[in-house]
Amino acid sequence: MTDTVTISLDAMGGDIGPEVVLAGADLSLKRHPTIRYELYGEAGAIEPVLAKYPNLKSASNVHHCDISITMDEKPSQALRRGRRDSSMWKAILAVKNGDADVVVSAGNTGALMAMSKICLRMMAGIERPALAAIWPTLKGESIVLDVGATIGANAKQLVDFSLMGSAMARALFDLDKPSVGLLNIGVEEVKGLDEIKDAGTLLRQLSLPGLSYSGFVEGDDLGRGTVDVVVTEGFTGNIALKSAEGTARQIAEYLRAAMNRTLLARIGYVFAKQAFDRLRQKMDPRKSNGGVFLGLNGVAIKSHGGTDAEGFAAAIDLGYDMIHNNLIGKISSDLEIYEKSSANTGDADFAS
Amino acid sequence: MTDTVTISLDAMGGDIGPEVVLAGADLSLKRHPTIRYELYGEAGAIEPVLAKYPNLKSASNVHHCDISITMDEKPSQALRRGRRDSSMWKAILAVKNGDADVVVSAGNTGALMAMSKICLRMMAGIERPALAAIWPTLKGESIVLDVGATIGANAKQLVDFSLMGSAMARALFDLDKPSVGLLNIGVEEVKGLDEIKDAGTLLRQLSLPGLSYSGFVEGDDLGRGTVDVVVTEGFTGNIALKSAEGTARQIAEYLRAAMNRTLLARIGYVFAKQAFDRLRQKMDPRKSNGGVFLGLNGVAIKSHGGTDAEGFAAAIDLGYDMIHNNLIGKISSDLEIYEKSSANTGDADFAS
Repeated sequence: MTDTVTISLDAMGGDIGPEVVLAGADLSLKRHPTIRYELYGEAGAIEPVLAKYPNLKSASNVHHCDISITMDEKPSQALRRGRRDSSMWKAILAVKNGDADVVVSAGNTGALMAMSKICLRMMAGIERPALAAIWPTLKGESIVLDVGATIGANAKQLVDFSLMGSAMARALFDLDKPSVGLLNIGVEEVKGLDEIKDAGTLLRQLSLPGLSYSGFVEGDDLGRGTVDVVVTEGFTGNIALKSAEGTARQIAEYLRAAMNRTLLARIGYVFAKQAFDRLRQKMDPRKSNGGVFLGLNGVAIKSHGGTDAEGFAAAIDLGYDMIHNNLIGKISSDLEIYEKSSANTGDADFAS
Repeated sequence: MTDTVTISLDAMGGDIGPEVVLAGADLSLKRHPTIRYELYGEAGAIEPVLAKYPNLKSASNVHHCDISITMDEKPSQALRRGRRDSSMWKAILAVKNGDADVVVSAGNTGALMAMSKICLRMMAGIERPALAAIWPTLKGESIVLDVGATIGANAKQLVDFSLMGSAMARALFDLDKPSVGLLNIGVEEVKGLDEIKDAGTLLRQLSLPGLSYSGFVEGDDLGRGTVDVVVTEGFTGNIALKSAEGTARQIAEYLRAAMNRTLLARIGYVFAKQAFDRLRQKMDPRKSNGGVFLGLNGVAIKSHGGTDAEGFAAAIDLGYDMIHNNLIGKISSDLEIYEKSSANTGDADFAS
């Protein structure tokens, strides 16, 4: 791979539109000057904004698309024949055709997942994709997946997630052998859905070289950063993620109210402003913006629909880092080792 | 019911032991002077502590038990014949025999659940118990259940949880018709496990007088306080609860670090100390200590095993409030109405 990373953007995506998408792209380009962009969307909306960013303009190709996928479209609607002229589909197609290395969109999550799955197709050996999130922890960052691509997962699929998540951790965090935990609940004997127990047994048996299996973790281990990769099925993962996001917003709200309540508190706030800024930065949801669809022949990144330029740039940076560090290659080579190992364990049920 | 509420305590429970249990009982007695206690545990350990609290002593009967259930005992071990002489079993049995109105224990959760279920038995019409937690929100408090009594729940069981949770909300929050939401994920078309959809349909059809069904809620609605009662099965509920607790601890840690980092921040902290104290109080996990087992013929309350006297007192207060406000009576009368309604809908599958 050359140093150039080509990123296709759905410029119409989300509630944000070209203004935010292009401002974000420009920010990211400043940090990674070798990025090239393929921009998909309504040329009449893109060009005037692009004119404001000369560097971005010279690093970009604009591809006009008449159609944009709206935020309330159902995946089934988005997959209809005519929607393949949409900016979202075209941006994904660019990855399939080799015109881009990674696609980033702030658009409709369900549509992006459905289109990516159909257009890029699953990697050989992977049964279903997962949406991976970067989770800020007391120790730094972890990867949590699946946070909502599908509901439910069997043991084999949880092992796939472990493998993809640890490849992503190696690509992003510069770790040789990330630790992986399976999310579970700690009540004795209730403990462990069968598929989670079986996945644990498999991970121990296989002892894959690209990850170190650490056993079960619980919900409070997420923020603690007990492991580098937390694996769960999409329903639970989505609830855990939103529950944590909600709690963070709730506490920020308490803090704001407490600091505004008395004159003394407001004076204190002025003295401690730098500390509060630091805290705000720590808690900034934009910094970890970007869910990654793993398991496809190509990387698709979902930015929050309501983010700003800084947040969208973080999603682009994430895409850049993963391509730069050869995420797909890492997953592929792990899969190969995994398939050999599972063949060797002789457990035909699990060696898909 | 007279004004007296009799509470049986497993004095040996948890990592805390008689010191904390009795200190908590004394605190709660100061707030509710009509409480009577039945204390179960090793008399030699209880009596010397009790001597320090004359008021508590005169409000209590001590019942010597040789055996205590340890924190690492599995529920199946705890259910063995000989364990029925344990302080935990005896404390639960007091509720069954009418010697106490409610039992509170900081002991082994799995053992407490298993013993309560066997000793108190399920209420007629309820298929499985649920562990309900009180969740601090931006609007006040909500009830979330099940947070870990069992894994999985079908539509009928989710409706049972809705009914029990709303009875608890009416007992605790002085509401006539609490709003109830079913926890779900918001990705279109992935949206909704069948049992959750079916439970929603049922709740709409039945239109029970004791609750107002508000539809699906997502993980971030928990902290927002969108509804008074959030219903989910035990695996997801446990992960959501611990994920939120972990996030709260994580942010408290960030805040502490930020406020200690520079001299200015420390000066600011001094000015804003009152505000921080207020925040700390808002976030104090002891205030909402106490998981409630719902669905049994009697109320059993699980306090956190590692709490202090203030936390244990909160669990006792919770028990007091629920008995004082006739929780079991509320659930029973709701169940009656529910059974009539479901008979009327003619949906034999759901009218158990």
